[in-house]
Amino acid sequence: MPLSLDKLCIHTITTKPWDLETAARKYGAAGVKGMSIWLDAARGFRGGMAEAGRMVRQEGLDIVSYVRGGFFTALEGADRQKAMGENKKIIDEAAELGAPLIVLVVGATPGQSLFESRKQVTEGLAAVLPHAEAAGVKLGIEPLHPMYADSRSAVSTLGQANAICDALDHPNLGITLDVFHVWWDDQLETGIKNAGEKGRIFSFHICDWKDQPDDMLNDRGLMGEGVIDIAQIRRWVRAAGFSGFEEVEIFSNRYWAMDQDEFLEKIKDEYLNLP
Amino acid sequence: MPLSLDKLCIHTITTKPWDLETAARKYGAAGVKGMSIWLDAARGFRGGMAEAGRMVRQEGLDIVSYVRGGFFTALEGADRQKAMGENKKIIDEAAELGAPLIVLVVGATPGQSLFESRKQVTEGLAAVLPHAEAAGVKLGIEPLHPMYADSRSAVSTLGQANAICDALDHPNLGITLDVFHVWWDDQLETGIKNAGEKGRIFSFHICDWKDQPDDMLNDRGLMGEGVIDIAQIRRWVRAAGFSGFEEVEIFSNRYWAMDQDEFLEKIKDEYLNLP
Repeated sequence: MPLSLDKLCIHTITTKPWDLETAARKYGAAGVKGMSIWLDAARGFRGGMAEAGRMVRQEGLDIVSYVRGGFFTALEGADRQKAMGENKKIIDEAAELGAPLIVLVVGATPGQSLFESRKQVTEGLAAVLPHAEAAGVKLGIEPLHPMYADSRSAVSTLGQANAICDALDHPNLGITLDVFHVWWDDQLETGIKNAGEKGRIFSFHICDWKDQPDDMLNDRGLMGEGVIDIAQIRRWVRAAGFSGFEEVEIFSNRYWAMDQDEFLEKIKDEYLNLP
Repeated sequence: MPLSLDKLCIHTITTKPWDLETAARKYGAAGVKGMSIWLDAARGFRGGMAEAGRMVRQEGLDIVSYVRGGFFTALEGADRQKAMGENKKIIDEAAELGAPLIVLVVGATPGQSLFESRKQVTEGLAAVLPHAEAAGVKLGIEPLHPMYADSRSAVSTLGQANAICDALDHPNLGITLDVFHVWWDDQLETGIKNAGEKGRIFSFHICDWKDQPDDMLNDRGLMGEGVIDIAQIRRWVRAAGFSGFEEVEIFSNRYWAMDQDEFLEKIKDEYLNLP
């Protein structure tokens, strides 16, 4: 279905060996139109956040999101202050960068029930949303695969993310949907429809789940080399009213070890090949 | 809550370095009361299935299940014949062994929708259930963690397993519940209740999900060293009417590398330590 690269965004982590400037120059030259920026990539840029944003836009790229805030569980006292401070700092950085959205990994605490963790996530979000609203930055809860429910994300499904959005009902709060995390869920179509009806699909990530990955974190596949029916999920997302960027986010030791110019060409090819 | 080892069953894969005879002797001497047997362990025993069963029972062990049948997806023609033949063979072996239950890994086929795969699983089960009934052997669908939905199991939740059981409504068809696979699911309590009401909880596996496992297959934790609230899930399972064995099934390179006598003592200790 993609006839052009107009909706293609790439997340800087995908080409981790490149620093922000190199990535922006290469993506821009390749005709990519959007970029999401990993915290470390932006913070590693010498000129500061505002200048990083200008530099990226000068290469013809829209900044889609700044990644990542979150980790709202099991916080008390000074730890809570620190975590809230860090989230507010990330919101300020996003605003300076000109990133309209922060992707959230909400957190989970080993030994604590996931129900309790989701309650704490809701409370943490309530505490930072006013700061996000004042800064003009949106927050996208990214449901992560249940294999990360131990200590990364108590939100494993779109249904759970929708429930938190319903509870807080704030225009700056929505969802980042990544096919890698949710492809297996038999409630996915309904969840996308529900999120779409409330205008809460803030961003959409694509990659693939390889048959029997070597590694739980860093063996994601390029679109087409795995088991996910990306085209189907994309149809649902579009039918739900989302018309934004399609963002390639791939954590992969294998691809990071490869020549990144060749990898970028492969990304473009596979993106254009998507049915 | 466990005051004794009367309900403790161990799956032979847990002590993989031991052959069937050694495992039976060691478990029996340690006061363990039940054993589940991996296909390879039983088939590796020289005297045949019936003799293997006798040998295990002579050590004071009940045989809880024979593991594993299944893989019902994307079968046509000769492949279908072969898979059905293999499942029938496993049923016959279970009957000879004196195992009342076969645990099923239902299968999934990369590139095929999970909805289609679950339909095929239902059809495959319908085809083998008469053979299981005639042999007096039960079949337990084991929902596997969504990280295995690529090519191992299109059934990732207890809800999906219940739906297949409802569709076929056969007294020989039920569920094997393993905390490792389902602990993250916010519908788990309801699923256990629903399965229990229909007498469909056929067996119950315990182990733990370590915080950030090293490996997707072989880094399971011993009870108490991970994030699963095993006691809570056990309360739900018992409240749902299950009073059978609690079966320790641990795939772990780390534990397999350890002295197996010491490991067996650790299993007993941690089992008795469960709150």
